[in-house]
Amino acid sequence: MHGLMQDRPLLISSLIEHAATFHPRTEIVSRLPEGTVHRTDWLGVRQRARQVANAMRALGVGQGDRVGTLAWNSYRHLALYYGVSGSGAVLHTVNPRLFPEQIDYIVNHAEDKVLFFDITFAPLVEQLAPRLKSVQAFVAMTDRAHMPAIDVPQLLCFDELLDAQSTDYRWPELDEKSASSLCYTSGTTGNPKGVLYSHRSTLLHTLMELAPDTFGISSAETLMLIVPMFHANAWGAPYAAAMVGARLVLPGPHLDGESVYRLMRDEKVTFSQGVPTVWMMLFQYLDKNPQIDPRELGVRRIGIGGAAVSRAVLERFENQFGAEVVQGWGMTETSPIGVISKLLPKHEGMDPQALVKVKLKQGRGVWGVDLKIVDADGRALPWDGVAYGNLMVRGPWIASGYYRGEGGPVLDEEGFFPTGDVATIDADGYLQLVDRAKDVIKSGGEWISSIDVENAAASHPGVAEAAVIGVAHPKWQERPLLLVVKRPGAEVDREAVLAHLATRVAKWWLPDDVLFVESLPHTATGKLLKTRLRELYRGHPLPTV
Amino acid sequence: MHGLMQDRPLLISSLIEHAATFHPRTEIVSRLPEGTVHRTDWLGVRQRARQVANAMRALGVGQGDRVGTLAWNSYRHLALYYGVSGSGAVLHTVNPRLFPEQIDYIVNHAEDKVLFFDITFAPLVEQLAPRLKSVQAFVAMTDRAHMPAIDVPQLLCFDELLDAQSTDYRWPELDEKSASSLCYTSGTTGNPKGVLYSHRSTLLHTLMELAPDTFGISSAETLMLIVPMFHANAWGAPYAAAMVGARLVLPGPHLDGESVYRLMRDEKVTFSQGVPTVWMMLFQYLDKNPQIDPRELGVRRIGIGGAAVSRAVLERFENQFGAEVVQGWGMTETSPIGVISKLLPKHEGMDPQALVKVKLKQGRGVWGVDLKIVDADGRALPWDGVAYGNLMVRGPWIASGYYRGEGGPVLDEEGFFPTGDVATIDADGYLQLVDRAKDVIKSGGEWISSIDVENAAASHPGVAEAAVIGVAHPKWQERPLLLVVKRPGAEVDREAVLAHLATRVAKWWLPDDVLFVESLPHTATGKLLKTRLRELYRGHPLPTV
Repeated sequence: MHGLMQDRPLLISSLIEHAATFHPRTEIVSRLPEGTVHRTDWLGVRQRARQVANAMRALGVGQGDRVGTLAWNSYRHLALYYGVSGSGAVLHTVNPRLFPEQIDYIVNHAEDKVLFFDITFAPLVEQLAPRLKSVQAFVAMTDRAHMPAIDVPQLLCFDELLDAQSTDYRWPELDEKSASSLCYTSGTTGNPKGVLYSHRSTLLHTLMELAPDTFGISSAETLMLIVPMFHANAWGAPYAAAMVGARLVLPGPHLDGESVYRLMRDEKVTFSQGVPTVWMMLFQYLDKNPQIDPRELGVRRIGIGGAAVSRAVLERFENQFGAEVVQGWGMTETSPIGVISKLLPKHEGMDPQALVKVKLKQGRGVWGVDLKIVDADGRALPWDGVAYGNLMVRGPWIASGYYRGEGGPVLDEEGFFPTGDVATIDADGYLQLVDRAKDVIKSGGEWISSIDVENAAASHPGVAEAAVIGVAHPKWQERPLLLVVKRPGAEVDREAVLAHLATRVAKWWLPDDVLFVESLPHTATGKLLKTRLRELYRGHPLPTV
Repeated sequence: MHGLMQDRPLLISSLIEHAATFHPRTEIVSRLPEGTVHRTDWLGVRQRARQVANAMRALGVGQGDRVGTLAWNSYRHLALYYGVSGSGAVLHTVNPRLFPEQIDYIVNHAEDKVLFFDITFAPLVEQLAPRLKSVQAFVAMTDRAHMPAIDVPQLLCFDELLDAQSTDYRWPELDEKSASSLCYTSGTTGNPKGVLYSHRSTLLHTLMELAPDTFGISSAETLMLIVPMFHANAWGAPYAAAMVGARLVLPGPHLDGESVYRLMRDEKVTFSQGVPTVWMMLFQYLDKNPQIDPRELGVRRIGIGGAAVSRAVLERFENQFGAEVVQGWGMTETSPIGVISKLLPKHEGMDPQALVKVKLKQGRGVWGVDLKIVDADGRALPWDGVAYGNLMVRGPWIASGYYRGEGGPVLDEEGFFPTGDVATIDADGYLQLVDRAKDVIKSGGEWISSIDVENAAASHPGVAEAAVIGVAHPKWQERPLLLVVKRPGAEVDREAVLAHLATRVAKWWLPDDVLFVESLPHTATGKLLKTRLRELYRGHPLPTV
């Protein structure tokens, strides 16, 4: 027997309608690629979004068709978020930091029908255009005055295209399971794979982002989105902001420390989300400008994800900014909320040193994400903060597979998605990452965290970067090999590094060998490319054999 | 094209599983009808809920079958919330304050298969049992030692029934649109009508209750549920508490001022929700005990709904308790969140007197509830805070009709539900109730709010209670008639009342006649029974005719 409640689908269009109806004059501030600061409001974004939806019709983009963007965070990109998805088409946010051949692959794989791009990327688009077979129109996200002089067929001007459209539009009542947006994971192996979000998954994830146990986003917020709108939908914040009518600040490509600082200060930002790298740039700017007291920014919360938060970052935000750090773990496949680091009432009054350890864990489970850690045979491991295993997640905003079936079926028998991460979970449900599953070193039936050994090595003053990989060993199956890039001018040798490690990791985790190298290979998004390292050092003879 | 996210249904069972997994040792404190204080935790509630689910099977209760409760707020009722709905049966919370003949009607109309009751209601159950044809078992919610000595067939003991069940149970993966609970509106006309909630509507409503723009419920909360679990699922708080693992305090039948005060103090309650009547009882207790400083309670927020909040109540909580008042408007048919009174950033620094006016409005729209006010022809009226019309609502947690089709189709062409309230909405989306639609007095094409005139009359020191109804008038269609119950010993006459009103309401709103009566008729839940007044005074000759 069904309940007798209204059968209303969960649709992205309802977000922009809510924001424009209840918060029409709340500002959306953008720093554009053109350099200027632009101001509109939720009413203005809805108008633009409706014009985008009408433009979709004009360009022959139907429901389910993919529309690509190569764009920074701005009100134009925001209008595409609502206009493209709201019309029933699929917004495909392409990461412009990928290698050109990856972008080529992605746009062709997604079969994007239209490609919107910021003028920053005009040269890239000109270079790629001949190979983007499915793209029928290239739209430069600017006004006529700033149109790039590039040789691309079907080049359109965003402002002109939209100005020509009616601001009347009736959003279709889609099936809530319809695809709404598409984001490819860069990955360190094989081709990028597409995560295809639905209206339903997006709305449920957005609702959870309002909870005080996650980001606690409210109408009282001025939210600065440093995390790019091409990274898992800017962690869902553009949707959450509309759901409550928060004020949005969008920095465009201006992510250097000074730009971020000035925008935070000038726009009185209360909450900002970004990866550790951006915060390091902000810190470097502040280091050079010691006359600035970051507490005067008045920022209340800093959301950090994408990589583990270090103690230094945590303490700087807490002590110098007076801001709470909200760490999270997630991935493109988890929309991205997986776990969020918020304290429990039991932590009140806890010794600050013990508390830091809790805060530096990736976070605690929230409703909507079932977690488990399993051993190599898929058996669930205990939540004791010690046992570690492959992390599996399940829930309505977790991917069930990849676009066009790439990678094949991925869920286990219980419907859990394998994250590829190795983690511990403690009795309070706090998760701590140990390593990537493929990077963990299997030694004598036990696992060694390559990340822990790398971090310990990197804490030596003479080490600029460190990588640890497993190398075949006849007795132990694998043993760790440490690769070190020295800091320029540093005097450091094998024995010094091993002595440094000896006091920091378990004895049986000590690398069997240390090699000094000129540089280490990275992915386009800056991650260590360990697959390449494993290829290069597969046959390295360990002195312990 | 569908998205590729996991197809996980939104189910009530997921809430108790989340709470027991991530917040196993968070307390659930109950003051029982037996008088004792009982402590369990989310793990304990899940165990009991699983035993309830197994008991459903043992009692032959299948998916979709209705199970009645006549019960106060306690951990036993909470276990039924999760065990009954989680198993796929429908939890029918019966309001024990209704007249016995209404309870008789409701239980028979719902065809409840089992009736759970607190020992408080044993005499009532004994009286009703012979007429409750569908009920195959009556379960007293107590232990063996407190079993009531009543003559009822198939009388079972809750604790014994559950102790005999396994604590292992696998929740079924129901269709999320399945009915989960049933609550009848008392109504002032006709028979009560049933609102049939679904798992989906409940979960979506619960998610919204976490938002800081509504109740902002988090794991940091100790939440005392004064609103009964038979009133629109205690406004959804039992579900929200589980979704975040909040600590719950359940006062049972002990709702007098002293009991409420002591429980708030002893259990360090941070947030409590209830109707104005209960708060008045708390204030009366505090008036008699001026040595108590309510600020020492440390309560942070007070949720008030069910009736408009008066300025006195608002200011007492703010000034004497140091607590924020979160007012809401809703009804059984809206789950109940309709609008919530939370301030906007623009109100910061506003003149306190102007701010009070904003705070005393019923509240602002939230995502998930579309609002409109319409005139008698169904035409939408402007949101200017002045125009008033019939309030219509739409959304995924709003009723589409009533159980077993009672009342026929109710939604308008756009799918909006008619609330029966008359309201204004201002430019910021704040709603203010004007009157019940059927009580508003239609005078010369304009509407007069009976509530406004009643409130103005009741502010006269000699008036104990006032009622205003429309009486037929040949020229104006209707004109107001004021009925007054004098305070004992008060000297007040027609002229004094009219003079008092003259400075408080528009001239054309002044009643055409004033009658002094001994008493006024009320519903079982204490509302003025204006249908009865209209019957009694239909033919009253107005002196103005």
